[in-house]
Amino acid sequence: AKGSIALVGAGPGDPELLTLKALRLLQAADVVLYDDLVAPEILDMGRREATKIPVGKRGYRPSCKQDDIIDLMIKLAAEGKRVVRLKGGDPMIFGRASEELAALHAAGIATSVTPGVTAALGAAASLQLSLTERVRARRLQFITAHAHDGRLPEDIDWRALADPCASSVIYMGARTLNSLVERLAAHGADPSTPALLVERATCPDERVIRGTLASLPAKAAALSPSGPCLILIGAVFAGGVEAEQIREAADIAIA
Amino acid sequence: AKGSIALVGAGPGDPELLTLKALRLLQAADVVLYDDLVAPEILDMGRREATKIPVGKRGYRPSCKQDDIIDLMIKLAAEGKRVVRLKGGDPMIFGRASEELAALHAAGIATSVTPGVTAALGAAASLQLSLTERVRARRLQFITAHAHDGRLPEDIDWRALADPCASSVIYMGARTLNSLVERLAAHGADPSTPALLVERATCPDERVIRGTLASLPAKAAALSPSGPCLILIGAVFAGGVEAEQIREAADIAIA
Repeated sequence: AKGSIALVGAGPGDPELLTLKALRLLQAADVVLYDDLVAPEILDMGRREATKIPVGKRGYRPSCKQDDIIDLMIKLAAEGKRVVRLKGGDPMIFGRASEELAALHAAGIATSVTPGVTAALGAAASLQLSLTERVRARRLQFITAHAHDGRLPEDIDWRALADPCASSVIYMGARTLNSLVERLAAHGADPSTPALLVERATCPDERVIRGTLASLPAKAAALSPSGPCLILIGAVFAGGVEAEQIREAADIAIA
Repeated sequence: AKGSIALVGAGPGDPELLTLKALRLLQAADVVLYDDLVAPEILDMGRREATKIPVGKRGYRPSCKQDDIIDLMIKLAAEGKRVVRLKGGDPMIFGRASEELAALHAAGIATSVTPGVTAALGAAASLQLSLTERVRARRLQFITAHAHDGRLPEDIDWRALADPCASSVIYMGARTLNSLVERLAAHGADPSTPALLVERATCPDERVIRGTLASLPAKAAALSPSGPCLILIGAVFAGGVEAEQIREAADIAIA
């Protein structure tokens, strides 16, 4: 049998946000390579006989670097294994998929990509706040606030990020939130722009910190989030119903 | 029983890209209100006894306006119905969800939102091209090219769209492609920037037209796409393996 690699999005956190296709591929896999952020419940949906290997930065190996992951994928495919590379969220958004696909294509390995619900969509659904809106949010933009060295990237068009008519979602945004807010202010962003931090979007222990560009850094520091965080910035993120109300209403709506 | 409305994303086209949660809600619904772009296979996954009502612009009703849809949802919820409002892609991206949620919350109706795979993620997966990349695409942005009057919106930050270090995905972009390219050129975009048109992303009859900002309008006009189209613009959309190769490889990878 010929080996293959399927890059598969695991969705934002809630195991029920896995797609039917991701489930089918998981149930057909010989080997599952999975990131830190993938819930154990999702791994449990995979084929029982599959070998499951953590390849995240907090995986059991002393160093699981991108090159090592690529080498492992090529080795497994050469052995004829059907491999699922399970990534948090969607593989094509801040997932370093282009490096993996380029190496796999160069090695002549059959690949496929299955999209997943990216964290921004999960957070918006939890909050019941649309990411786009006529007039107030015609443009939606995503950046990651975490460069190679762990600091805020330098090469971002900050003016575009500070646009009051756009919604912005910042992935991996908790650690560099202070620098981000400083940058946006320096590029003309209104300090009263609504800004939220969402930790572990769509998970049972999801937390939301509501504020403005001016107030969010102090509020976030006080609550010291430890899970993966998104920062949502823009006029559309004002108001909305409170988290508790949403949860109660969602319980009725889902029941 | 108390009625409720669940806004549910149906994903980009391929019925297998539905989430497990969307499937569960569909199977519990009394009424399903669905948009034009939702595949019949997805509706068939719903509870057999459910009433299924098209509410898209091409629905069977002479005029299915946003206000009529909202009135219908409120009426059904008041009758105690569990309603799924099924939207193409993700409800929170260009889905006019904020209007619906505001009206439903004002009417005191229990609501929930279930995210879906938005079309941009589906297209990127089909093409096996990552939407983001270190250095070349730190920022990802989405706009819709279809304003209220069917023309290109005026109130867009075109300079942000023309940024050579961002990836841009334009929803509903086929009809206004010429104007879009003119605007981007006027704001400094390089005419040789890679640009793709993807029609019916993730569907079996998906079509991809590859070009540059300079060449895409004429190529797209010659092929006259009729289904929903995305335009993808940015350095990361150059190259990639050819569609036929991807399909063959995907067949192996999925088999």
